[in-house]
Amino acid sequence: MHEFQLINKYFSKLASKNNSSLNLNDDVFFDKSKKLVVSMDTYVEGIHFINFKKPDLVIKKIIRSSISDIICKGVKPIYYFISASGNKKSLSSSNLKKIAKSLKQEQNKYNIFLCGGDTVYSNKLSFTVNSIGFSKKILFRNNAKLNDDIYVTGNLGDSFAGLEILKKKISTNSSLKKYFESKYYLPNLYLRLTSKLLSFANTSIDISDGLITDLEKLINKQKISYKLNLNSIPISKNLNKLLTQKKLNKISFVSRGDDYQILFTAYSSKSRIINNTAKSLGIKISKIGKICSSLQKSQVIDQKGNKIAIKNKGYYHQF
Amino acid sequence: MHEFQLINKYFSKLASKNNSSLNLNDDVFFDKSKKLVVSMDTYVEGIHFINFKKPDLVIKKIIRSSISDIICKGVKPIYYFISASGNKKSLSSSNLKKIAKSLKQEQNKYNIFLCGGDTVYSNKLSFTVNSIGFSKKILFRNNAKLNDDIYVTGNLGDSFAGLEILKKKISTNSSLKKYFESKYYLPNLYLRLTSKLLSFANTSIDISDGLITDLEKLINKQKISYKLNLNSIPISKNLNKLLTQKKLNKISFVSRGDDYQILFTAYSSKSRIINNTAKSLGIKISKIGKICSSLQKSQVIDQKGNKIAIKNKGYYHQF
Repeated sequence: MHEFQLINKYFSKLASKNNSSLNLNDDVFFDKSKKLVVSMDTYVEGIHFINFKKPDLVIKKIIRSSISDIICKGVKPIYYFISASGNKKSLSSSNLKKIAKSLKQEQNKYNIFLCGGDTVYSNKLSFTVNSIGFSKKILFRNNAKLNDDIYVTGNLGDSFAGLEILKKKISTNSSLKKYFESKYYLPNLYLRLTSKLLSFANTSIDISDGLITDLEKLINKQKISYKLNLNSIPISKNLNKLLTQKKLNKISFVSRGDDYQILFTAYSSKSRIINNTAKSLGIKISKIGKICSSLQKSQVIDQKGNKIAIKNKGYYHQF
Repeated sequence: MHEFQLINKYFSKLASKNNSSLNLNDDVFFDKSKKLVVSMDTYVEGIHFINFKKPDLVIKKIIRSSISDIICKGVKPIYYFISASGNKKSLSSSNLKKIAKSLKQEQNKYNIFLCGGDTVYSNKLSFTVNSIGFSKKILFRNNAKLNDDIYVTGNLGDSFAGLEILKKKISTNSSLKKYFESKYYLPNLYLRLTSKLLSFANTSIDISDGLITDLEKLINKQKISYKLNLNSIPISKNLNKLLTQKKLNKISFVSRGDDYQILFTAYSSKSRIINNTAKSLGIKISKIGKICSSLQKSQVIDQKGNKIAIKNKGYYHQF
């Protein structure tokens, strides 16, 4: 059973309060009256990060993944809490120093502050992070409109390439290796875009589990479909080079997750303001498809208009 | 190294913001301007709860332990988040049903609402809970005044007796067994006392790690000492019976933690209002000692005024 099915089944009833802002279907919690926005995520070694050989990078990635949930909703994160479960080795004095140093660097980069947490002993290493922001308004899921354009920030697939290289499933030269590993560990978040998002997007999500998986999550309660143009899905020059060299399929890289790019939909009338915002902020924003009626099936099409089969839609947390 | 030493050493610097409300030394985070109060705690199987044979009771205890952090500061919890890490067995469909049912019951009892969380796969079972409340004011640690009286709510030691019975270190009749096990799993929190606390207490903490440990935490940055009267430390009739039957020392039970009673200090002039509040709410509140100058050493004394040696001060999370 998929994570969100499981959560929906057992826990969504507990979040009712005749209050529309309490909604476990979204990645964040929003209390409109208190202007409070909160996310909570747990990261387990071997599942959400491959190992703890580079504590400094792992911690940075975890923090970015957590605040990304809030940033993609149009809200600036301010506070975070981190609970670490680990053993004497993983949470050694030397590693704790590295963790603290990385946290400090992330705090400076994203203007966030550590507010508390917990450290407990466990054989299995995991971190739970809460991020908190304040806003009168957020972008909810399931608010895409028929004929909306679908947009994504940055490039997709670099992080998955980095993971495959770290797992030694792909070999490449040291310069590309360095590039992709850095993309895997250090996703670039667009704090400057955050507040602008509210002015043009109808709905949004960050891509953590994969383009297709997250797009389907984004509209999972709506009777609509999507049409994505594979050709429009943005990839880096380096990924293009790697795919060509290794004869790999683009779709199997751009749909695998951990990108932490923002996926959103907007009225086609917003096209100009979106392009202008992208230019003025120096952030790549690509139009990759359209929201269509439920009469047609959701699909990804290639340059010739042929439907593409997707073998792996991305990552689901499975039990 | 003790948990809070470790946290202090590496992480407290990260929480500075020239803002006195950001203070990792307290069990809760308080942002005065946003009136926000947050606690975060992680509970690991085998450390914070002995096993998961009774998911319904374990979940109740975890939720109470988490909201207790906020309640003892004079603030009503409103929201909570729970992240569960476990395997297919511990987070089976049947257990998830039990967990959801328990959460629903706790929500009704304490008027709190589930706002989100996460479920991830891990061999080691653990839960991280965040509780959130809103208040203009909270009771901070390290605000005890010289000559303050020291108070505690309810009875101490029942929970530790329950744990010893569950661990089969103490055997007793089935009626006492039932009583103590219930005290271990279901600490009674005083929601009605919460807002009153702000009007008479100077500083407060909930007893999770043990009377002595938590009292020392409560005043760990102050140049003061304490004097506790063992005779005044409240225990239940049932615990008194057990101690007599088994020839056990009172001090070794009342100092072992997991009581979730509120420990607070107050000016001696507040004695009357405290007694009246206790009577009107039907809550037992006992005066158990005094805050003294740093010229004398902290001590626990018996009926005859003799100093008592304490072998086990309670529970420290150790690495």
